[in-house]
Amino acid sequence: MATMQLIEYEDAPQEVKVVYDDIRKSRGSKFINNFWKGLANNPEQLKSTWENLKTVMGEGEIDPLVKEFIYIAVSVANSCSYCIHSHTAAAKKKGMTEQQHAELLSVIGMANHTNGLATTMQIDVDESFLQ
Amino acid sequence: MATMQLIEYEDAPQEVKVVYDDIRKSRGSKFINNFWKGLANNPEQLKSTWENLKTVMGEGEIDPLVKEFIYIAVSVANSCSYCIHSHTAAAKKKGMTEQQHAELLSVIGMANHTNGLATTMQIDVDESFLQ
Amino acid sequence: MATMQLIEYEDAPQEVKVVYDDIRKSRGSKFINNFWKGLANNPEQLKSTWENLKTVMGEGEIDPLVKEFIYIAVSVANSCSYCIHSHTAAAKKKGMTEQQHAELLSVIGMANHTNGLATTMQIDVDESFLQ
Amino acid sequence: MATMQLIEYEDAPQEVKVVYDDIRKSRGSKFINNFWKGLANNPEQLKSTWENLKTVMGEGEIDPLVKEFIYIAVSVANSCSYCIHSHTAAAKKKGMTEQQHAELLSVIGMANHTNGLATTMQIDVDESFLQ
Amino acid sequence: MATMQLIEYEDAPQEVKVVYDDIRKSRGSKFINNFWKGLANNPEQLKSTWENLKTVMGEGEIDPLVKEFIYIAVSVANSCSYCIHSHTAAAKKKGMTEQQHAELLSVIGMANHTNGLATTMQIDVDESFLQ
Amino acid sequence: MATMQLIEYEDAPQEVKVVYDDIRKSRGSKFINNFWKGLANNPEQLKSTWENLKTVMGEGEIDPLVKEFIYIAVSVANSCSYCIHSHTAAAKKKGMTEQQHAELLSVIGMANHTNGLATTMQIDVDESFLQ
Repeated sequence: MATMQLIEYEDAPQEVKVVYDDIRKSRGSKFINNFWKGLANNPEQLKSTWENLKTVMGEGEIDPLVKEFIYIAVSVANSCSYCIHSHTAAAKKKGMTEQQHAELLSVIGMANHTNGLATTMQIDVDESFLQ
Repeated sequence: MATMQLIEYEDAPQEVKVVYDDIRKSRGSKFINNFWKGLANNPEQLKSTWENLKTVMGEGEIDPLVKEFIYIAVSVANSCSYCIHSHTAAAKKKGMTEQQHAELLSVIGMANHTNGLATTMQIDVDESFLQ
Repeated sequence: MATMQLIEYEDAPQEVKVVYDDIRKSRGSKFINNFWKGLANNPEQLKSTWENLKTVMGEGEIDPLVKEFIYIAVSVANSCSYCIHSHTAAAKKKGMTEQQHAELLSVIGMANHTNGLATTMQIDVDESFLQ
Repeated sequence: MATMQLIEYEDAPQEVKVVYDDIRKSRGSKFINNFWKGLANNPEQLKSTWENLKTVMGEGEIDPLVKEFIYIAVSVANSCSYCIHSHTAAAKKKGMTEQQHAELLSVIGMANHTNGLATTMQIDVDESFLQ
Repeated sequence: MATMQLIEYEDAPQEVKVVYDDIRKSRGSKFINNFWKGLANNPEQLKSTWENLKTVMGEGEIDPLVKEFIYIAVSVANSCSYCIHSHTAAAKKKGMTEQQHAELLSVIGMANHTNGLATTMQIDVDESFLQ
Repeated sequence: MATMQLIEYEDAPQEVKVVYDDIRKSRGSKFINNFWKGLANNPEQLKSTWENLKTVMGEGEIDPLVKEFIYIAVSVANSCSYCIHSHTAAAKKKGMTEQQHAELLSVIGMANHTNGLATTMQIDVDESFLQ
């Protein structure tokens, strides 16, 4: 159970409703997920987080689906169960295939594996990587 | 300084040389980075790690450059300095542009940010994400 | 479910009851939370952990409520759900306001964000910070 | 060595200079630390990160020095060496005494300790913490 | 709930059944735990992960029970609830006594504690440790 | 460079010298490593940390060398470079062979690998592990 109250649309102050409306419009769905309902306790933070996220995860030089892969990878390493679930759902909605999901899993597994090896050995960074 | 001795090509047993040769051939470069020289203390582990990595990071449903983005993201969350340097170098070699690097940075920043928020609030996973 | 049996007051050996009694007295409540019931499998560890915690979290140059903020921040970064819940409850009991909770959330979010950025960029520590 | 070029004031585009000027003014010092010089590769991200940080770390219901304590705690858990150095320097500048530093150290140590214990035992959250 | 479908023996393709059979034979039990059922979405990864794990966790210069201690310690630091539960169960099956479990808990607690202290202080590695 | 001053034996107050003497006696060496010199800023914390560590890492149901393996594993997952170096040195002093070091490396690598897999898949804990 959340340590902060979740604010439903009906109970939200006007400035929160404006953000909720933008989330709905931007996603083409009436659904507002719990993350935003928790952040709504601080309307200013809700607004700035949503706007940053919308900018960062939108179209750019990296494909939006690829950004979801990166988001999932970070969330796994940080052990954020909520974030893994929400961004896996987002990735599926953006077209992640089962085969891509399986490959993402392999890459995350190997990255954690070799991170563990390099850190245990305390390997010095090669000169050529520093140029 | 590494906690394990780095094994140079000249001093390596035959089974290690075989892996080093494959690394060189696969990358089209004579350079062997320190990570492999450390793992070479255990030739069997060197071989299996290299072969797994080659398979996982190669062509597939996810683009090899995208796999490097994912690898960097995991390495940051695990604070593996060696891995960040080596996979950033690999990403540049595979064509990562400065603009992509900047976007990757933004996504990693935001993912860490919202991971921290969701975990602090202990947000429950929405029912719709569990289907 | 816990991987260790929880020891209730009634079933506890005398040396555990002494610690439980001190926890109750110190907190002005009969409630013993599950964390201590798990540690009670090792009475010596129960005693030393409780005594250290009581000393560290008590009055000092840093305010006890501020110490709870720090505790929550560490627990989030370590993804310890139990600890986030128990120390958020403790902070509320020590007077944390909703506004403080919201600011704590913002600080934790930003700290995770810029940690991610600095680690991705592998920024060198400025000379002036090392003096 | 950083994986991104550090942008000095002299070489910075106008939009970066504006942020640098604001950092200088806000801190009452000509010094710009490397973190911002790295972010300056992406002027938009530089601007939004700086503005968020200034807001979040400024005056509020939590004292700015206390916010530095929280920042340090998060940075330790994330093993961000750069961030520990820069925010310890910031805390000292904001008046952290040696005694407070020592207490901060104790709290971080104990929090990591009991996080490890609670996670190893997989302790269930007490009902009373969920209300 | 898992983000990937769990593949039951009955529904599994032949190449997955072969691995499941080997897991059963190797453990002397018909039980297949959920981890493998999830990995079975990618039969190749299932096979290589199982074979690596069998090799690594088997008899060697480090006792198999000790390897479980190490596994639990890593899983705690990574906050992998599933892994803590499964490897604690494995350790009990391999003969971990309650007293050993309590000592393991103490060591993990102290290691997290002093890790936090050393990282907060940013202690330089002693010359003599680098030889 | 450390964020706290290192206290040398010559400059230490009497209560610190007592602990330093006990460290020297207990290890049969005049060498005091930097970790303790940093903690000495807070003599009470120095004393309690040393005494806890001596108890926890001493003889018991788990072998002292095995405890070092566990310590190294935790330190790797927490990315504590200092701790990895100091406890690898301690393990070597307690008799860790090169072959054991290589196996420890394999176990840590695999544990990180499967932790990453289980967390990505958000695998539910099997009922049978909860009994």
